[in-house]
Amino acid sequence: MIRTLWICMILIAQSACASAEQPPRARDLGVPFDGVPGPNNAITDVQGVEVGYATLIEGSGELVIGEGPVRTGVTAIHPLGKDVTDGVFAARFSMNGDGEMTGSHWIDEFGTLFGPILISNTYSVPDVHAASLEWMRARDPNNMTHLPVVAETWDADLNDMYGRHIKQEHVFEALNSASSGAIAEGNVGGGTGMFSFGFKAGTGTSSRKVGPYTVGVLVQSNFGLPWRFTVAGVPVGQILNPDATNHDFGQTPSGNSIIVIVATDAPLLPMQLERLAKRPAMGIARVGGVAERASGELFLAFSTANTHGRADDEVVTYDVLTDDAVYTLDYLYEAVIQATEEAIINATVGAETMIGVDDYTVERLDHQTLRQILSAHNRLIEPEQSE
Amino acid sequence: MIRTLWICMILIAQSACASAEQPPRARDLGVPFDGVPGPNNAITDVQGVEVGYATLIEGSGELVIGEGPVRTGVTAIHPLGKDVTDGVFAARFSMNGDGEMTGSHWIDEFGTLFGPILISNTYSVPDVHAASLEWMRARDPNNMTHLPVVAETWDADLNDMYGRHIKQEHVFEALNSASSGAIAEGNVGGGTGMFSFGFKAGTGTSSRKVGPYTVGVLVQSNFGLPWRFTVAGVPVGQILNPDATNHDFGQTPSGNSIIVIVATDAPLLPMQLERLAKRPAMGIARVGGVAERASGELFLAFSTANTHGRADDEVVTYDVLTDDAVYTLDYLYEAVIQATEEAIINATVGAETMIGVDDYTVERLDHQTLRQILSAHNRLIEPEQSE
Amino acid sequence: MIRTLWICMILIAQSACASAEQPPRARDLGVPFDGVPGPNNAITDVQGVEVGYATLIEGSGELVIGEGPVRTGVTAIHPLGKDVTDGVFAARFSMNGDGEMTGSHWIDEFGTLFGPILISNTYSVPDVHAASLEWMRARDPNNMTHLPVVAETWDADLNDMYGRHIKQEHVFEALNSASSGAIAEGNVGGGTGMFSFGFKAGTGTSSRKVGPYTVGVLVQSNFGLPWRFTVAGVPVGQILNPDATNHDFGQTPSGNSIIVIVATDAPLLPMQLERLAKRPAMGIARVGGVAERASGELFLAFSTANTHGRADDEVVTYDVLTDDAVYTLDYLYEAVIQATEEAIINATVGAETMIGVDDYTVERLDHQTLRQILSAHNRLIEPEQSE
Amino acid sequence: MIRTLWICMILIAQSACASAEQPPRARDLGVPFDGVPGPNNAITDVQGVEVGYATLIEGSGELVIGEGPVRTGVTAIHPLGKDVTDGVFAARFSMNGDGEMTGSHWIDEFGTLFGPILISNTYSVPDVHAASLEWMRARDPNNMTHLPVVAETWDADLNDMYGRHIKQEHVFEALNSASSGAIAEGNVGGGTGMFSFGFKAGTGTSSRKVGPYTVGVLVQSNFGLPWRFTVAGVPVGQILNPDATNHDFGQTPSGNSIIVIVATDAPLLPMQLERLAKRPAMGIARVGGVAERASGELFLAFSTANTHGRADDEVVTYDVLTDDAVYTLDYLYEAVIQATEEAIINATVGAETMIGVDDYTVERLDHQTLRQILSAHNRLIEPEQSE
Repeated sequence: MIRTLWICMILIAQSACASAEQPPRARDLGVPFDGVPGPNNAITDVQGVEVGYATLIEGSGELVIGEGPVRTGVTAIHPLGKDVTDGVFAARFSMNGDGEMTGSHWIDEFGTLFGPILISNTYSVPDVHAASLEWMRARDPNNMTHLPVVAETWDADLNDMYGRHIKQEHVFEALNSASSGAIAEGNVGGGTGMFSFGFKAGTGTSSRKVGPYTVGVLVQSNFGLPWRFTVAGVPVGQILNPDATNHDFGQTPSGNSIIVIVATDAPLLPMQLERLAKRPAMGIARVGGVAERASGELFLAFSTANTHGRADDEVVTYDVLTDDAVYTLDYLYEAVIQATEEAIINATVGAETMIGVDDYTVERLDHQTLRQILSAHNRLIEPEQSE
Repeated sequence: MIRTLWICMILIAQSACASAEQPPRARDLGVPFDGVPGPNNAITDVQGVEVGYATLIEGSGELVIGEGPVRTGVTAIHPLGKDVTDGVFAARFSMNGDGEMTGSHWIDEFGTLFGPILISNTYSVPDVHAASLEWMRARDPNNMTHLPVVAETWDADLNDMYGRHIKQEHVFEALNSASSGAIAEGNVGGGTGMFSFGFKAGTGTSSRKVGPYTVGVLVQSNFGLPWRFTVAGVPVGQILNPDATNHDFGQTPSGNSIIVIVATDAPLLPMQLERLAKRPAMGIARVGGVAERASGELFLAFSTANTHGRADDEVVTYDVLTDDAVYTLDYLYEAVIQATEEAIINATVGAETMIGVDDYTVERLDHQTLRQILSAHNRLIEPEQSE
Repeated sequence: MIRTLWICMILIAQSACASAEQPPRARDLGVPFDGVPGPNNAITDVQGVEVGYATLIEGSGELVIGEGPVRTGVTAIHPLGKDVTDGVFAARFSMNGDGEMTGSHWIDEFGTLFGPILISNTYSVPDVHAASLEWMRARDPNNMTHLPVVAETWDADLNDMYGRHIKQEHVFEALNSASSGAIAEGNVGGGTGMFSFGFKAGTGTSSRKVGPYTVGVLVQSNFGLPWRFTVAGVPVGQILNPDATNHDFGQTPSGNSIIVIVATDAPLLPMQLERLAKRPAMGIARVGGVAERASGELFLAFSTANTHGRADDEVVTYDVLTDDAVYTLDYLYEAVIQATEEAIINATVGAETMIGVDDYTVERLDHQTLRQILSAHNRLIEPEQSE
Repeated sequence: MIRTLWICMILIAQSACASAEQPPRARDLGVPFDGVPGPNNAITDVQGVEVGYATLIEGSGELVIGEGPVRTGVTAIHPLGKDVTDGVFAARFSMNGDGEMTGSHWIDEFGTLFGPILISNTYSVPDVHAASLEWMRARDPNNMTHLPVVAETWDADLNDMYGRHIKQEHVFEALNSASSGAIAEGNVGGGTGMFSFGFKAGTGTSSRKVGPYTVGVLVQSNFGLPWRFTVAGVPVGQILNPDATNHDFGQTPSGNSIIVIVATDAPLLPMQLERLAKRPAMGIARVGGVAERASGELFLAFSTANTHGRADDEVVTYDVLTDDAVYTLDYLYEAVIQATEEAIINATVGAETMIGVDDYTVERLDHQTLRQILSAHNRLIEPEQSE
């Protein structure tokens, strides 16, 4: 169950993250999931997709805005890899608009996405946005128009968010260190200071094979109320919070937010991708989310199949999955839901307990407790052997 | 567990539906649901809402278009009761647009709904639409504008749908027989010929109390693939269709459709109702739906709180739940999801086996089997005593 | 300026419309328009598009609902001709949702349109809808799903609209008589009983050449207030209604509605067609419309370039105009605006005075008056010679 | 026609803008417009609305990125004045999504706007966004959530846009210097380096009285092709560019962008404001815009009538203009269109010739030429006397 991997691309606080044993993932614990994942069970299973992180963990104790403690980061996703300047078809959906994803007007108008997707904390949106402008201009000075896509969730409970610690160098590091293959989860990248259902969470990923195609999902998970936490259909949150089922009306905290990025190599048009971009809501429902009033839930889906270079001709040719491919589309929809569900659980399973500003502590999910509850509901499976 | 009730308002085929013992509902079987339902656990728990059915069951054997067999009906929902001509605030959402709900442009523009909501089969949309025009004009001849809301799902597997057996008199009967209180489920109204997850389904309803407010849901459930059927988080469909989990890519049928109507007395604006109108998708996710490619999933939400009579003054006053009421909104969202989930299960639990065109038969869900599977997953509860 | 043509395909009231001299069109009067029209300056200039009308003019005098007088009709547009069952890419836009266009959910979801577009009066929507279902099923019995597109405007000022005089035979006649080539304008088809800016109007059409492509527009024009009428930028309505410029606040009637159908053979995706579907609003603005509160303004655009037959393969190939074709797209957008403007003026120029229910009379626009006003503003051009 | 006023709030380049005679506005030149403007014919005629500018004009000659020349700025609009932290109802519309307006997801979800609206150049979006975060947090440290609204148009033809010269101090200056009353137009604020229809343009404003209500519009006008320029319906651009009417297909430049902000004190709900937010497209159409492929046209409308403080109670009361107020709504729609048209012309009339990067020069519209063309089309009116 133990794989060693350098999971950290930390710029500042190397001491906090040296070589680590990679934590187990939800499947490793015996959580049952439907569908067949790709080789890395990650968004990077979609050919060409690269993911990079910058993770900033520094300082401790009392909050001094501008000094720390720092518990944050930035996640970069390159749909076609960091070296390709072409665009891809894309679409987005807002299940709950209490959040930000810049660049949405372009996507709504043209159904295309040029450049990387970046995810960070709420107050670092402008700094990440500016860095994206600069990085893209350096890469392609002749491209006059770049409207960066930057999404966010809120990490001020653990992080000196108002201090805006993410600088251009961190964003460049996330962009330039991006790679395919297995990627880290939990307290990394934009997910560093995030939590879900009362447990430390953050970044998670998963993938599914659908015939010749792959669907990959990456989440920045920072949402969900403790008593709603559901794993493989089992009401884990209710069991762990038995009194909460009778919680008084209006006495409970509301959720935060989740960003979901969906990648596929299925050759889909923007209108078809918009359908994929709606389905993370159904994956979120499976783990107990209700898209709470204060939970920004913004989703973006893209396809790597028909790329958009500078066209020589006015008329270009696209190979597209027909809407008559009813079954394939069904499975693609299902794959988004399954991978979203698993990515969220992975984000929680993969995160470690974190002590943040003013020593506020968010505990990790205890893996044994989870296994016991699943077992009590006949929902624990023997994990596949890995070493 | 047995309550007797006249559940049928059948116009043609009285022989098929005499006095019946009301079938049990999902809670009666011990299916666990979250949240607190209203007194009837029905959309009619929202004060003022009235529901009426016309159910047409006639003939058997070989399909002769225009003659039968007939297995269909129409469901009427009056937001403020059949005798009130005022309008209500409303909003809609399309999770999957493979279907029809007329009157949507008006709702999108003005956020209001005047007149009844009608649900029937796909080919009866125009006949129901025409009847709605006539019924509304008879009620209010001076109202020049009425854009009927008529939604549909597909029942041609059991019903001579192309025969368009629903006539004006049937629609009027559904409209005029509408009442508050307990309402029938299963093979009634527009849901008569519908099925879900391989089992006979149709009309279902449920409600939730949220502080001083009530949320009610009515579904016309005709969607879902057998192996995806999920009850209280338990993968019932996988257990009943063990081989289907390895189903070949592209060899499986796709789903049909579901219409979800959400009512509340919480004083919400159209923009807030739009959020309620999105959340049935999360309830559908909980029972195993993925909004399949061919499954039209159209949702409509309305509030009975601020009614729209002919105003004497240009400026009118609305009392509105503020968006700062974060917790109340959270619970309202959750209530929609919970009630959608339960209404779908109720539609299946409440339906009887039906033999339709060309003797095509759709079996009911066996209640004991369901209980056994839930029990095996520690998810069966002792039902509340009822008599 | 006079061309003779049989312009009528009237089923009932042949006496009202025998062989006629085709009325002049706006260009024939010297109204200046920008851009280059196609050979017929009609939507049928888009290769494959066919248009058919049924025009019902019968009776006179006092309104007796169900008897008449009848001044209405139905317009049928076949994107690929009446004999082709394939679908086309399509998109829609609602500038003002006070109206109905059925079939919108499908178009929003899939970006495709199968079957004809039908336009009639408000109360005939269900009858036209039903006829579309039957006509389509007769043509293609194996196509299980057809969601008819039926749009409407309101003609009860001139027509016994509540009498619902349009029957299946009329709809079939419009569908079956559809043809390419020059098409009639004014008091024909769905536009029979419509008026705009205080003048009799109805059906109008126009087209533009854009490089290798053609854009065609057909309007059912029933909107606009007299003092806002603008022709070629000249405030004709203000000049004809000099006192109205000081009209009292709140003492004026509101507009009705306009349906605009845009056809093109440019190979556009649904997202691109959505942009075309927005631009009729800009053409309407040029003639003095403000999308009044009660004016339903619903637009639909389709492309004949990539048709949707039953695919043999899951992956199909589309040739598509790239969004990098900035100039071509600009001119296509402009063409929609120009053709919408001209089609609206054509609908008014081509209509004759009509006496309707209770002898309510709507006068035609006097052509000489229009020419004089344009001339006084240096905006009259010498019409091209035609014979 | 000459009024003296200190129109500049320039931080850096005082030499470029000392005490000035206020330039004439379109009405001063005799351009006819419909409707009745408010006292300042400006967005600030809506009670409470304040507008501030920072205008950066510095350097000349060759472009050195990061050094200059600088021809840019930022415009700040406070819906309720700079000292009020309450929110307002708001809605937005994208006529063309080739641009950025951050904060849109929140507006779409909640229909409210908290904090200022800021408009600048494309590359300064992140810097203005960051400054908005800091300014808002300083004003209200307990408000955890602020999602800044920052819109942009492209000024790199005249300005060292890539140099990102707008710093936090400039944004604060625009925010803090905002005032009601008459406001400057042309080369000020975010409009400093913008041009339209081949002429120098930039910031423009106008207002209309509608019964007891006021509608105000502010534009950052940077769109439009020379030969399409239309003033009061007269094809000025065609007359000035006679050969362009036969311009070769594909040989012409495309437009840039326009941001339109609509303010009103009419008590409108978000759904009603969305209708106002659509109508700037119709004003743009009147001056010759076609929402060109590369012209980002993003509109935002807000109402100052129902403000959103921190509510003590869950249920709040709104006084709202009913949708039955058909005529009032008509005139409000018309007012948006009229004021948008006039604000665009004002932006052009009020701008001075500018020499920018690499000595690229954009000439002002010659006022006498405009008057002559209008006069030749019987469309010049005697301007009202002003002193």
